Amino acid sequence: MIDLDLIGIGTGNADHLTRQAEAAMNAADLILLPRKGDAKSDLIDLRRTLCATALTRPVRIVEFDLPVRAATGAYLAAVGDWHDAIAATWAAQIAEHLPQGGRLALLVWGDPSLYDSTLRIADRLRADGMALHVRVIPGITSLQALTAAHAIPLNLLGAPVVITTGRRLRDHGWPEAADSVAVMLDGDCSFTTLAPQGVAIWWGAYLGMPHEALIAGSLADVADEIVERRAALRAEHGWIMDIYLLRRPARP
Amino acid sequence: MIDLDLIGIGTGNADHLTRQAEAAMNAADLILLPRKGDAKSDLIDLRRTLCATALTRPVRIVEFDLPVRAATGAYLAAVGDWHDAIAATWAAQIAEHLPQGGRLALLVWGDPSLYDSTLRIADRLRADGMALHVRVIPGITSLQALTAAHAIPLNLLGAPVVITTGRRLRDHGWPEAADSVAVMLDGDCSFTTLAPQGVAIWWGAYLGMPHEALIAGSLADVADEIVERRAALRAEHGWIMDIYLLRRPARP
Ligand SMILES: C[S@@+](CC[C@H](N)C(=O)[O-])C[C@H]1O[C@@H](n2cnc3c(N)ncnc32)[C@H](O)[C@@H]1O
Ligand SMILES: C[S@@+](CC[C@H](N)C(=O)[O-])C[C@H]1O[C@@H](n2cnc3c(N)ncnc32)[C@H](O)[C@@H]1O
Repeated sequence: MIDLDLIGIGTGNADHLTRQAEAAMNAADLILLPRKGDAKSDLIDLRRTLCATALTRPVRIVEFDLPVRAATGAYLAAVGDWHDAIAATWAAQIAEHLPQGGRLALLVWGDPSLYDSTLRIADRLRADGMALHVRVIPGITSLQALTAAHAIPLNLLGAPVVITTGRRLRDHGWPEAADSVAVMLDGDCSFTTLAPQGVAIWWGAYLGMPHEALIAGSLADVADEIVERRAALRAEHGWIMDIYLLRRPARP
Repeated sequence: MIDLDLIGIGTGNADHLTRQAEAAMNAADLILLPRKGDAKSDLIDLRRTLCATALTRPVRIVEFDLPVRAATGAYLAAVGDWHDAIAATWAAQIAEHLPQGGRLALLVWGDPSLYDSTLRIADRLRADGMALHVRVIPGITSLQALTAAHAIPLNLLGAPVVITTGRRLRDHGWPEAADSVAVMLDGDCSFTTLAPQGVAIWWGAYLGMPHEALIAGSLADVADEIVERRAALRAEHGWIMDIYLLRRPARP
């Protein structure tokens, strides 16, 4: 039997850790840390630092290489194959390092519920017959890091919010359900495809991290600035993660 | 000059506190704790416990009575008046307890960005001429407590999510923008107004608290059970806070 703790660690700032997360890390028999290749080596460094900061007793830490997603083919199929490959890698690590079972912890960026596939990968292991009990420890999301950094509310008073991806914003335009739209997983500055009149944007990159960058204003005024800053930061650091909130005036 | 820290404290579990939140509480000159009347006295007790748990140095704590919202009249107007009254109460507390300025901390349920008006009330003080610098510390939301307790993702793979209120769900039906809909601030079990076929629900009340209650299943199967359990719990405790996630099968 494997007790799998999926621990939300926040988005780059060790001070995002909750007491619950720290306790779960210290209760683990094994912490598996994924290595994602060179460009994002900041992220494995951060996870190492988190362990060094949070662990008050010796917990075994094993690093492993995360399979790489195929860059070709249909998106959903490529993601499905990738999740299968990750599940196989987890299974191999578990067989090697926890052959008698025990408590396994994975450190999940932000919160495990939000645009993260760790839960879906755990489902695959269960479907393959592994006796797995999953516990989720919530963590601060990049969306909360964004609204906190700008000191803004996510929603207008009593009004709804859509959380979506850059791809969907580009393909489907502004989602009519809400005047506040949070956009994640956008490699292409999809806000540039919107009619900017009356729209405000709050943008953030590397939130919680030392090189956090913030831009806010009317979309008409700051769209170009965000596109340029994003390209420059990406060139400088070799990778970027950014997120933004769009708001149009409330409709009656 | 007032440095106002709006500190997200999570949703009823002291272990939701982040390191950042604990540091901010300890850095305050004054922590103001609102009293909301009898029914929810659990909530002021919880805030007192949080202070006792988190504070490692003596910080001045002042409790004050939160004005009560008018139960009559138009909703938005009543809320506007209520926020004005709260702003006036804060101003009076600040004048009395921090006349020379300083660092004021308010403990905000969940995360200050999500269906919370603390930021809007701070805006009123600024509009009235107070020199106020606001910092937001993110906290675990009830939505994250819900998905963690059920060990489920918020979104389907790469798909959007709508966060909305019970009132909107009831008045506008399922928001077409998404197959996953999170509903908060629902005093009326508005999920009973939906056609239940094919819809799944994950419901939670008092999340993070000792009397946490969870129900999940197909809406057709568990809607009545939720309505009954909610009424019974509300009668037992004198108040209830609940939240749920609805999901229909992904549409192509
Ligand atoms: C695979 S999702 C994971 C989200 C994560 N589970 C969370 O709770 O924030 C990755 C996306 O999250 C956003 N993101 C994550 N961390 C971020 C950060 N530190 N700064 C800005 N955006 C971030 C970006 O939109 C990125 O494309
Ligand atoms: C005024 S909003 C505040 C939300 C809060 N800022 C957050 O981040 O969760 C109150 C609503 O949040 C939800 N809620 C807050 N705490 C909860 C809890 N412990 N269990 C279930 N629902 C909760 C309920 O839907 C409730 O009507």
